[in-house]
Order: sequence, then C-alpha cells, then structure tokens
Amino acid sequence: MPRQITGSEIERLIQLLAKLPGLGPRSARRAALHLIKNKDRLLDPLTTALGEAGAKVVECTNCGNIDTVDPCTICSDPRRDTSIICVVEEVGDVWALERAAAVKGSYHVLGGTLSALEGIGPEELNIGTLLMRAEAPEVNEIIIAVNATVEGQTTAHYLTDQLKPSGVSVSRLAHGVPVGGELDYLDEGTLAAAMQARRPF
Amino acid sequence: MPRQITGSEIERLIQLLAKLPGLGPRSARRAALHLIKNKDRLLDPLTTALGEAGAKVVECTNCGNIDTVDPCTICSDPRRDTSIICVVEEVGDVWALERAAAVKGSYHVLGGTLSALEGIGPEELNIGTLLMRAEAPEVNEIIIAVNATVEGQTTAHYLTDQLKPSGVSVSRLAHGVPVGGELDYLDEGTLAAAMQARRPF
Repeated sequence: MPRQITGSEIERLIQLLAKLPGLGPRSARRAALHLIKNKDRLLDPLTTALGEAGAKVVECTNCGNIDTVDPCTICSDPRRDTSIICVVEEVGDVWALERAAAVKGSYHVLGGTLSALEGIGPEELNIGTLLMRAEAPEVNEIIIAVNATVEGQTTAHYLTDQLKPSGVSVSRLAHGVPVGGELDYLDEGTLAAAMQARRPF
Repeated sequence: MPRQITGSEIERLIQLLAKLPGLGPRSARRAALHLIKNKDRLLDPLTTALGEAGAKVVECTNCGNIDTVDPCTICSDPRRDTSIICVVEEVGDVWALERAAAVKGSYHVLGGTLSALEGIGPEELNIGTLLMRAEAPEVNEIIIAVNATVEGQTTAHYLTDQLKPSGVSVSRLAHGVPVGGELDYLDEGTLAAAMQARRPF
C-alpha cells in the first residue's frame, strides 16, 4: 500500500495470509477483513485452531504422515489392511486418496521425489523406513502411487529396484483417461497409455 | 472426508480456513498443509498475528473504519485534508481507494447500504456520525463513493437529502469506461453513461 493506512498488526496479518497457497495480496486483504469482521465466529477460533495444530503436529514415525498423534490416525486404525502399503510423495496425496476412499491399507509418505536437479537423493527421502516396513511378514503388496511426472516415475523405478529383495509384490496406479475427461482435451501421452492398457468390455 | 484420517485439530483448522473468502474445502486443505509444513516460518507467526489483530482491532469512533487504534490511522494523520470526507460502504472500499491514492481527505464508513429487502434502514448504518461530522466548519466537500448498484445509489440519494441542511457540497464518483477497459465488453448502462459524460479532448 502506498501510504500507511492501518495499524501494523493488520498489515502483518495481511502479509502472512498472502503467503498461503491460493491467496494473493488482494484476496489476503479480503480474508483479513473477513476475519476481523467475524472476530468471535472466525478470527478467535482460527487463532486457537492454529495454536493447537502448531503445538500438536508431529510426523508419524511409522509412515511419515503428518498428524497430531504418533503413530498417525491411519497407522493406528485397526480396520486398516496391514498387508498393503501405498507409497505417496506428499501428505496431500494421502488426503486425496482418502477422499476417494481408494486405499484399504496404510500409507508411506516419501516427502518428495528423487531429483538430480534439486540434489534430492534417496537419503533425503523417507525410504529407509519403507524398506524396513516391507520386510514385515504381513505385508504382501506395495502400491507406488507417485505423480505421473518424470521425477515421480524415476522414484518409482528406484523403489521397485530397492524393494525387489523383500519379495513383496509392487504395483503402480493405472494410466488412462480421467473419469469425466474428454478425449479431445487429453495429451497424446495419456491417450497412448489409455489405448495400450485397454480392457475388454 | 469419508473416514477420520487426521487428528481433530487439523480437521478443525481446515474447516475454519475453508470459511475464508477465496478458499474452498480443497484449497483450505492445501493451505492447512502448507501452514503445518512451514510451522516456524508461517504457522506460528500467523497464530501470533491473528491473536494480536484480534486483541487490538477496534472500530474508529470518528469514521467507522477498522484499525488497531482509535481514532484510526487515517483519521489521526495530520497530512490529511480535513475539508473532504469520502463516504464508502465498507472498510474494503477504504483500502481500495487508498491503494489508488485517490482520496486526500478522510473517510466515513457506512457499514453497508440501505436495503428494504434486507430490512436495513438508516438506523442500521453509520449515518448519524456522518451528519455530525458534516456540521464541522472545516468540512466543505463530501464525496459519496458507494458502489454503482441499486442499493448504493439509493443510499447516495438518501445521504444527499440528509446532507442538504448542512450546506456542504456533495459529489459522487464519475461513471465511465474503466481505464484499460474495452468497449466491446462493457454493458450498455456504462457505455451510455460514459457517452453522456463525455469530455472535450
């Protein structure tokens, strides 16, 4: 802002809100105003919620998921199928797969992908614990659900190699046409993959 | 989410973030994760900033603006021209006009517009203080900068009537083509207004 128009506390709040993904400077100002106008209903509860989340958040020592308990809610859920481990890049992927209720087993969060460019080797990722978990007698399938990017696929290949000695079966997500997707808007790679993996009706 | 997958503190944080304007359930989850992953750099400072803003925010008794000091930063700025009062609907409008550095004087925030439909009469708005401020001998122009909506214009007409006895001159924002706007995309009302208010080159 060209001139100082509000107290520094509000300016600081706007600056911090603008750092959230999905909020730019303009929407951060709108969010700040909305918070201030709804002090009892929103600002105060959000302050408390942030404080509590901040104080309690831990990384699950078993799977690398983020939660307020360790082991995380998923790892300690007795209804989960302990024979399946689904390997993902980030915690956000766990949440996405859970929304789809697509995984009966537990997860393992790598915390990223191998990337020669960014200097991320196997040591930087949460791979050691995965190899240990794969040795457990009850585990018989590891689903590698990484992104369909170059880095993701490189990581998937590396993991498949590393998991070979454990004798556990390793699978990956299917490539194909997204549900609801229109062929006309899809890239050639996806179309070729979908065609190749075609299934009988 | 179909199943309980994280501790309730994180769920609660997501629910509250989703109430911010510009954030839906999906972006709220992304924002929550981003906050948790950047605890020291973002989550903790935001907790503090929210707490401080929440503790200090007050409405300016002079103009109705929201700030952490009363009178607000603008009302107490000695460089402001005290002969001009710019009347706006909401605090967000003050911020917008300040970004444009369009107002030399001070502001008066109504807190909304007259609306028969929503049962908002003059008593619900911050109009009494405006009429009192208009009586001050140093005030000689009141700019009514309300939205160009039916409610805004109704409010503007009402205020003009109310301000007549004070003898102060009352003006409104110009209607016309937005800077950078293309005629082809403008509505007929704006085009007609811009044509009628045409100015010599």
